[in-house]
Amino acid sequence: MKNTAIMLLSCRDSKGIVAAVTAFIYQNNGNIVTADQYTDFDDGMFFMRIEWELDGFRFTPDEIKNGAFSEIAEKFAIDYRLYFSEQKPNMAIFVSTQDHCLLEVLWRNSQNEFKGNVSCIISNHKGLKKVAENFKIPFYHVEKTLENKAEAEARELEILQEHDVTLVVLAKYMQILSNRFTDVYANRIINIHHSFLPAFEGARPYHRAHERGVKLIGATVHYVNQDLDRGPIIDQAVMRVSHKDVVADFIRKGRDLERLLLVRGIALHLDHRLLAYKNRTILFE
Amino acid sequence: MKNTAIMLLSCRDSKGIVAAVTAFIYQNNGNIVTADQYTDFDDGMFFMRIEWELDGFRFTPDEIKNGAFSEIAEKFAIDYRLYFSEQKPNMAIFVSTQDHCLLEVLWRNSQNEFKGNVSCIISNHKGLKKVAENFKIPFYHVEKTLENKAEAEARELEILQEHDVTLVVLAKYMQILSNRFTDVYANRIINIHHSFLPAFEGARPYHRAHERGVKLIGATVHYVNQDLDRGPIIDQAVMRVSHKDVVADFIRKGRDLERLLLVRGIALHLDHRLLAYKNRTILFE
Amino acid sequence: MKNTAIMLLSCRDSKGIVAAVTAFIYQNNGNIVTADQYTDFDDGMFFMRIEWELDGFRFTPDEIKNGAFSEIAEKFAIDYRLYFSEQKPNMAIFVSTQDHCLLEVLWRNSQNEFKGNVSCIISNHKGLKKVAENFKIPFYHVEKTLENKAEAEARELEILQEHDVTLVVLAKYMQILSNRFTDVYANRIINIHHSFLPAFEGARPYHRAHERGVKLIGATVHYVNQDLDRGPIIDQAVMRVSHKDVVADFIRKGRDLERLLLVRGIALHLDHRLLAYKNRTILFE
Amino acid sequence: MKNTAIMLLSCRDSKGIVAAVTAFIYQNNGNIVTADQYTDFDDGMFFMRIEWELDGFRFTPDEIKNGAFSEIAEKFAIDYRLYFSEQKPNMAIFVSTQDHCLLEVLWRNSQNEFKGNVSCIISNHKGLKKVAENFKIPFYHVEKTLENKAEAEARELEILQEHDVTLVVLAKYMQILSNRFTDVYANRIINIHHSFLPAFEGARPYHRAHERGVKLIGATVHYVNQDLDRGPIIDQAVMRVSHKDVVADFIRKGRDLERLLLVRGIALHLDHRLLAYKNRTILFE
Repeated sequence: MKNTAIMLLSCRDSKGIVAAVTAFIYQNNGNIVTADQYTDFDDGMFFMRIEWELDGFRFTPDEIKNGAFSEIAEKFAIDYRLYFSEQKPNMAIFVSTQDHCLLEVLWRNSQNEFKGNVSCIISNHKGLKKVAENFKIPFYHVEKTLENKAEAEARELEILQEHDVTLVVLAKYMQILSNRFTDVYANRIINIHHSFLPAFEGARPYHRAHERGVKLIGATVHYVNQDLDRGPIIDQAVMRVSHKDVVADFIRKGRDLERLLLVRGIALHLDHRLLAYKNRTILFE
Repeated sequence: MKNTAIMLLSCRDSKGIVAAVTAFIYQNNGNIVTADQYTDFDDGMFFMRIEWELDGFRFTPDEIKNGAFSEIAEKFAIDYRLYFSEQKPNMAIFVSTQDHCLLEVLWRNSQNEFKGNVSCIISNHKGLKKVAENFKIPFYHVEKTLENKAEAEARELEILQEHDVTLVVLAKYMQILSNRFTDVYANRIINIHHSFLPAFEGARPYHRAHERGVKLIGATVHYVNQDLDRGPIIDQAVMRVSHKDVVADFIRKGRDLERLLLVRGIALHLDHRLLAYKNRTILFE
Repeated sequence: MKNTAIMLLSCRDSKGIVAAVTAFIYQNNGNIVTADQYTDFDDGMFFMRIEWELDGFRFTPDEIKNGAFSEIAEKFAIDYRLYFSEQKPNMAIFVSTQDHCLLEVLWRNSQNEFKGNVSCIISNHKGLKKVAENFKIPFYHVEKTLENKAEAEARELEILQEHDVTLVVLAKYMQILSNRFTDVYANRIINIHHSFLPAFEGARPYHRAHERGVKLIGATVHYVNQDLDRGPIIDQAVMRVSHKDVVADFIRKGRDLERLLLVRGIALHLDHRLLAYKNRTILFE
Repeated sequence: MKNTAIMLLSCRDSKGIVAAVTAFIYQNNGNIVTADQYTDFDDGMFFMRIEWELDGFRFTPDEIKNGAFSEIAEKFAIDYRLYFSEQKPNMAIFVSTQDHCLLEVLWRNSQNEFKGNVSCIISNHKGLKKVAENFKIPFYHVEKTLENKAEAEARELEILQEHDVTLVVLAKYMQILSNRFTDVYANRIINIHHSFLPAFEGARPYHRAHERGVKLIGATVHYVNQDLDRGPIIDQAVMRVSHKDVVADFIRKGRDLERLLLVRGIALHLDHRLLAYKNRTILFE
């Protein structure tokens, strides 16, 4: 794979944006690999993901970041983020006691399936330490009680900083993060919820789904914001259940939904294919 | 197809039920075509669907109904319903202005796909009268206002009685039925709701799904009881949507979910494959 | 909906194509509505679908067609096709005796779901004439025998010309078209095949699927070329079957796959979202 | 879970089988947990799976095996197999170099999700030895060349015997077994094939699927018999692909299909829910 730059843009829609952005790349000797755009006509907003090869491009990554694009950005009031394929972001996995999502993430990580690396695992329990060791990933046990929550989160943020983490993955963490924490990592915390949101927000969704007599169970991978289970949805999936399934069957079957959907969300985020806008996500597939 | 009897049974679980029921059929010269059973171990309840050929069977349908099975039924306190494949039940379709579900039901009916017949169409609008005429099905326009609801329902029940209707299908009827009505047809009214229940109960589910930014839209076919949108779920289905879809796209895409799911629910009911227990359905597939 | 131009482009990949195309639109006062591109890196080929508003655009549709874009097209050796949203193409439906696909297409047509119109129905049988009349679409009975095939096709091509047809839809037509015919409508004939191609090419796919004991049945919507059942695949879908299903069940269940998939293929084609390249389709979704 | 007996029966269809079998269980004080049956009316064959609690049952497992049921079996010429939930069968996993299926099976095994145990791993390569050690499962490296195939298989059969293996799982083994081997384990070898059979039988299915331009890729879990890739299909699954996916994407995406489908096949087999008849499987779900 060649080294590329990926830009995610959003701005008010107006004529000439695509022409300006593509001209900037072309005139500076860049070769566009992919470009995808979306216009929200109701809101008059324009969104774009564009990727181009840096080999032969006039500007270095630093120069792009520090101004080469600024004239166009100012002209159209573009809000943009810039990534470089050679700079693989670090992610941290938060876990509690369940291992299925963690194992799935670690196996994908070991296969180099992600455009990023798992740099640490943080848990409020010690049970999954052995798994971390098998995969040779640093494991931090940060105990959490009702009393020490602020301190514990401060410690967690410290660890994230040490590891230069830009994506936090809640792999069945089962703990609510404070606004202080979620604000630091706005749209950079991915959670897997074991229901088809907005059905069964909150605790024990499989139990409530069973009680309601649903015929499909679901899972939702989403960004976490201040409203629990109400952040922008990245993707959803469902699986058939029957009257024969008891709650334990829902839980067992749901595990497959959860782990596959979680890694899908992570992969999309790390490939810079997601843009959160209002309370939804734009997915450049 | 040979003429068969179909029995749906439910009772408290105990040893010997299956042996007793199958012995009753065998000893009276019946040939079992299919048998399916389910035990709810939490509640200690037993459910069964059994079908046997009537050709050569010692008892006539009337004799079975009027007592041949009564000894066994009393011994195990079995609650049972008995159907005969030659007696095709009549159904009524309630519609408002949307035609897609009605057309789907009428087309299947014309193909003899149902083990039952559409005997009339009732609508609070006149718009779909032409469709009814094309398919040669009696059409009744029963206007409904806030004021005349009780009278209108009385008229509807009268029509249903005239046509000997045992299944009411709400094909996007968009009107709430009174408890008086739903009690008469308990677990014999099938509705199609355009969301993945219990998400988006009530009005305008596609609008609310769009606002929430879901990635899958759903539909639910269910029995109607006194609690709107909370009756036993028969089946559910979902379809992928993207950020590019506006509400009108949700509505358009959802139509395919709705009509296919509705006819599936009707077919299962008419084949006596559904047993409502508590707030869920047991499906003998 | 505003009037737009849609261009489908393909050419050898090189720097500057996107910049040139978008600059052409921008500098002539066009507003890009959507743009999607794909590069086949193995073959070094570039493909694009771009749509822009014609309101305020410097050139009329005729001027675009007759030269405004020619300089760029020549520079990059672009093979392009140009469509205008106000010019709705005509399609013809070829049917034999089965009605489910025809009804689906006609219902969608009556709902204005297609960006095109059904202008005539051609059949080698008379059975579906009544359906055509209900929907007020001209119906042509063109008998086909082993002996008269060439003549019959000549008559069909004549009818297509009279109706200015640019898309031929084989809605369970069950007849093989000659190369002479398929060459005239290359990549403009859409067929629905009742198997998951390339499994069960040819006749009686459901029978063979049943014999093989498959657990999923499929359908394939594809362009028809000289090799029967081997044209570029547009889309595919599957449905679960069980050991309980006999061939008649496969056929009945398969009908839902077939009709929904066929209309999806038609809709994508009429929205100019498909580009056939080699033996596959590029889908700009 | 209570200890239960599970019986899989097949015989020519005739009146009284179900009554006889259920009476046998009831009269000997057994409590039927589940019963499922299927009649193939074309062939006049009857199939049944019945499970009952052994607690309080008059006969011991040995007595059932050695004759208690023989009178009924003879009367109806029933071919039956009998299993006991407390006797967990042993399985062997055959692998080559790919680890995804192996990891999935071992993780499920470690979660006690199977009604059976992985007792050994056999491989023609040494690469996955470490994985076996992590999960504490004996690993045997049996090299295979064109020359030593007979000897190698003899050694493999020896290992299987040592471990009392009754189910052989080919987890991407990529080697063809001889008839001698498959005959020993008829309908007890499960393979995962990376295509939607019968499409792309044989080698490199993803490459050929890509070349054909399919829009869905598939996988098939099946019993292995003498005809490669033509044994009774247990289950199949598919996944959407697009024109953007290169062969490597097919392979990567397909891994998820393969591993989930393989463990589903294993679980169904170990729960005695599969009956191979002719070239298909009857699934008692």
